[in-house]
Amino acid sequence: MQDLLSTMSKYPHLRINSDRLRSDFEALSEIGATVDGSVSRLALSNEDLEARAWFANRVEDAGLFVRDDEVGNLSGVYFCDNPNAKTFLIGSHLDSVPNGGQFDGAIGVLAGLECLRTIQEAGIQLPVHLEVIDFTDEEGTWQSFFGSLGLTGRLNENDINDVNQDNSAFRVALFRAGIRPSEVHRAQRTTDDIVGYLELHIEQSEVLEASHTQIGVVSKIVGRSTHIFNFYGEATHAATTARRKQRDALQAAARFITEMHHMADETYEGAVFNCGNVSVQPGAYSVVPEVATLSIEIRHHDEATLSAMDSHLIRLAHDIAKDYRVSVNTQQVLRRSVANMNPDMQSVIQSVCEDEALTSMPIISYAGHDAQILSSTFPSAMIFIPSKDGISHSPKEFTEWNNIETGANVLLQTILRLVDA
Amino acid sequence: MQDLLSTMSKYPHLRINSDRLRSDFEALSEIGATVDGSVSRLALSNEDLEARAWFANRVEDAGLFVRDDEVGNLSGVYFCDNPNAKTFLIGSHLDSVPNGGQFDGAIGVLAGLECLRTIQEAGIQLPVHLEVIDFTDEEGTWQSFFGSLGLTGRLNENDINDVNQDNSAFRVALFRAGIRPSEVHRAQRTTDDIVGYLELHIEQSEVLEASHTQIGVVSKIVGRSTHIFNFYGEATHAATTARRKQRDALQAAARFITEMHHMADETYEGAVFNCGNVSVQPGAYSVVPEVATLSIEIRHHDEATLSAMDSHLIRLAHDIAKDYRVSVNTQQVLRRSVANMNPDMQSVIQSVCEDEALTSMPIISYAGHDAQILSSTFPSAMIFIPSKDGISHSPKEFTEWNNIETGANVLLQTILRLVDA
Repeated sequence: MQDLLSTMSKYPHLRINSDRLRSDFEALSEIGATVDGSVSRLALSNEDLEARAWFANRVEDAGLFVRDDEVGNLSGVYFCDNPNAKTFLIGSHLDSVPNGGQFDGAIGVLAGLECLRTIQEAGIQLPVHLEVIDFTDEEGTWQSFFGSLGLTGRLNENDINDVNQDNSAFRVALFRAGIRPSEVHRAQRTTDDIVGYLELHIEQSEVLEASHTQIGVVSKIVGRSTHIFNFYGEATHAATTARRKQRDALQAAARFITEMHHMADETYEGAVFNCGNVSVQPGAYSVVPEVATLSIEIRHHDEATLSAMDSHLIRLAHDIAKDYRVSVNTQQVLRRSVANMNPDMQSVIQSVCEDEALTSMPIISYAGHDAQILSSTFPSAMIFIPSKDGISHSPKEFTEWNNIETGANVLLQTILRLVDA
Repeated sequence: MQDLLSTMSKYPHLRINSDRLRSDFEALSEIGATVDGSVSRLALSNEDLEARAWFANRVEDAGLFVRDDEVGNLSGVYFCDNPNAKTFLIGSHLDSVPNGGQFDGAIGVLAGLECLRTIQEAGIQLPVHLEVIDFTDEEGTWQSFFGSLGLTGRLNENDINDVNQDNSAFRVALFRAGIRPSEVHRAQRTTDDIVGYLELHIEQSEVLEASHTQIGVVSKIVGRSTHIFNFYGEATHAATTARRKQRDALQAAARFITEMHHMADETYEGAVFNCGNVSVQPGAYSVVPEVATLSIEIRHHDEATLSAMDSHLIRLAHDIAKDYRVSVNTQQVLRRSVANMNPDMQSVIQSVCEDEALTSMPIISYAGHDAQILSSTFPSAMIFIPSKDGISHSPKEFTEWNNIETGANVLLQTILRLVDA
């Protein structure tokens, strides 16, 4: 990364072995495969552990060094000659959501491994160690970004032994995987060790596909805010209580959902608004709803706008509650900042695409990725390849093989330029 | 009932024993009493069975005959001299909703018993048997109006052994109470046996209180229709799927709830509309809701209007589903017709009030009562007394004792006129 804007690597014609990568992809896709064509490799499940064991074997088969850490991140390392060199990290995750796709996460890890093998086979000596990493529980079966949070020093025992919830099943799952809550803080790595992070991933949206673009150069990963809004009315008999005296929590909540989506469409271009769940108490046909609980999520690529949206949502909820003579309690559950990808690294990816005569475009990631966690500590960047119809977390998730091969080669050339090889 | 419009009974000065009725009321209120001042006597629960045993003892103590039937209805009978005489029925129910009030149902049964005792003590010979009845499960812990449906011949074994649901707990509860599913059809009674039915009940609304009226003469019990509406969208990633491509079942459902209440307020004067429950699948922050399931209830006092409302609701749901590019499936769960109270019996109640110098008014019942089931087979009527603030099914349910005493005396005089004593 000493000369990030170098316009050419010393090995501009080096290519990954597409057949070997595809063979790995097909073998991995068998692990946790379900009858509907999806994969279920929930973090720390038997299927996830099987995928990790398989990955460790592939690393060893390649003559690379297997490394793991105190949060279960699993790596293959191609050491350079200088034992005091720093490490350049490439990765993603092997875990999946239930009945997820074969591509999400897996492509990034396998292409990273393929890049290491390709560079090693070419006998290229680098000024840094190269490490391909599988991060634990990116998808949040237990805790989203568990592995990347641990690596950036943002996990400790208290996060697992949370007094506010029963994490006993989580602790059992960690124990089975050999992860001790008391040790997770030791997974931390710093800029003394790591110089940068690069991740290849499917886009999960349809921007690239719709614009016939081969490569997306991620500029930002959107910030995310989740809330629980509780509207409180009064549980009275719906048939015997005069309508003008009813205080209906659900009526207010329904109006809020409608208005929230209106606000999303009218005021906040490019924003994500979702009300993903509603539950009602007491929930009987004849009883006016007393409590309506909403799970709300918003995302935006601009930090100030995201904060403005948070405030706007809360104000809207209070205004509507007043209109319906109910009350509302709002609680922010999670707030992740907008993650900016390193501009110099973006330029390098872009120049690789230009030199390879590939179409590329800057792109915002609306989905979360380990890169957003890594970027708070290390220069980080992401390369996107198209997703068919923008579908992910689904058996319908699909990316053409030539797109994967192209992405893996962009990953390879970007690594070579970034580490000045 | 031979001369329903008789303007005077032969015992116009006969009065119930208010102290004895109050003592019964206080004793019964202890059974299933909860710390918040409510009662929980769920049908066929230990508390309900205890209340029934207590009631049977009070019937026996009064020297009346204890009778029960194949659906668990429990009665006290004051036989007249003619063994071939028909029966005039007075009643209500001793069961309650969870944490319900002390008055709902209980007043009707206890006042009925008190009327029988008063008439018996006065040595009055009647041309009919008088029977005070406690109907099983009016409130619908297991099946609304179980007792009155059984008595009118509308229950059989298949209603309990419903293949569409697991009724095993219901069967166990029935078994504990000595009720056999195979025998419930035998509870049927006909007009060969019963000449009419009269029920005293708290109003549960605030019409009487607001107009300072002592007695409500129920003209109709509203018809009721309940529905399950399922809106079906598509579960996609809310952050990576373009908003214009999202098919959000909850967004459509929320709009429907808002529009339904607007329609209720603008188009259907005096109608009841409630959406009492919503559930969402899959219910995650980041996932666009695929299914939104709504529990909807409507009531109206006019049969044609109720049917029009049913159609209007279904049309509205389809129109809104179309707007949001989702689909909707509507299913009617229950449909009860408007129940008309017997006009002659209403006139008798009204004339009693006039002769007793009590203020009275015709009133529509928005709550359901056993009388609505009985009225399909037997001439039936209801006497309402005021409810404080119209609150019921709540520890706040309250009726002043003098209103109860007045209601019990109107019940007594109405019985005497109806049976031509």
